[in-house]
Amino acid sequence: MRVRNKPWAPEKIAAYPQYIVSNPDEWKGKWTDRFKRKQPLHIEIGTGKGQFITEMAKAHPDINYVGVELQTNVIVLALEKLIEEDLPNLQLLHVNGEELTAFFLPNEVDQIYLNFSDPWPKTRHEKRRLTYRSFLETYQTILRENGEIHFKTDNQKLFEYSLGSFSQYGLILKQVWLDLHQSEFVGNIMTEYEEKFSSRGQRIYRVEAYFPCTK
Amino acid sequence: MRVRNKPWAPEKIAAYPQYIVSNPDEWKGKWTDRFKRKQPLHIEIGTGKGQFITEMAKAHPDINYVGVELQTNVIVLALEKLIEEDLPNLQLLHVNGEELTAFFLPNEVDQIYLNFSDPWPKTRHEKRRLTYRSFLETYQTILRENGEIHFKTDNQKLFEYSLGSFSQYGLILKQVWLDLHQSEFVGNIMTEYEEKFSSRGQRIYRVEAYFPCTK
Repeated sequence: MRVRNKPWAPEKIAAYPQYIVSNPDEWKGKWTDRFKRKQPLHIEIGTGKGQFITEMAKAHPDINYVGVELQTNVIVLALEKLIEEDLPNLQLLHVNGEELTAFFLPNEVDQIYLNFSDPWPKTRHEKRRLTYRSFLETYQTILRENGEIHFKTDNQKLFEYSLGSFSQYGLILKQVWLDLHQSEFVGNIMTEYEEKFSSRGQRIYRVEAYFPCTK
Repeated sequence: MRVRNKPWAPEKIAAYPQYIVSNPDEWKGKWTDRFKRKQPLHIEIGTGKGQFITEMAKAHPDINYVGVELQTNVIVLALEKLIEEDLPNLQLLHVNGEELTAFFLPNEVDQIYLNFSDPWPKTRHEKRRLTYRSFLETYQTILRENGEIHFKTDNQKLFEYSLGSFSQYGLILKQVWLDLHQSEFVGNIMTEYEEKFSSRGQRIYRVEAYFPCTK
């Protein structure tokens, strides 16, 4: 996502340590302490401007959410939403998705969301896709047994690639949607990007997959 | 497929025992004897009017093909194509796909094609879909280790269902195409149905999947 530089972003992030984690290794294995209640932990990798995770947190007060985003100029917009809503079950984590094992203990996470990840269409950039096997290894490590990945995208090639990558890594596809907005799926919460592109008639693809018990 | 009744079909089928097998249990484990050459065996379940399997046999003389079709009024049209072409590497089998283990030995088949199978959209008819788990069990039995299933359809719901069914059964998705005719796939051979529906702008979905070595 290309966004305008916001020189004020780092200062703002530093001013709200109760919402956004900047020293995340301190919290490894202790995420529960940052929430009001001990309940399942779902994380979104690449939270962007935060509409999805904020709305999810409002819709599901019985789940704790962490939105992970590397880009300072983007996560600060998610932070602004969180400040306004003051949700007890949402936290933000300002790091690179690649480094998740430094911030979560094995089995600490119950579910992972990937929404409209960068497709990195060139073959030589395959390793950067968030559904490449090295990322799946990371997700498997931090997810509990039978933990699920819920992935949606409007990018056909990325979805084709990801179904293969998931399956070849050993994930089981629980359910696939090839046109989410025309389906019977209930409770879909749209990202900013999803609102924009689906209104232009773009199909949205979705898959739920899980790691079988092999740990 | 709904087709006109052809009272002459049974007689025609009986007249060409060199092309179409009517006593298939005799040939279990001996399919190679019905072909000129000993080479890999690929079968199509639901061969219909036979355009796909006939063209495949012409394009790949190094592979032996068997087209399996239950409907007498349909397979007779595939037979007519075969009579005209007189292909040494194509045979027809006039039986129900459910009963394949009665006609092929374990590991006798190298690859299975499913093309535009009946979607049986009602949930109560799930068991009739050719990608339902009981059929997958049959395919696994007759396929060799790492044997592949190549499935294509224009039916979105059937494709969604089948990806899940394959994965949950333990098949690994090798590659997925969500719009075959707009893809870089080379060598696609169309069925009669595919020609008709893709010319109307219908997307064609395709997947290649294999059973990992677990026998």
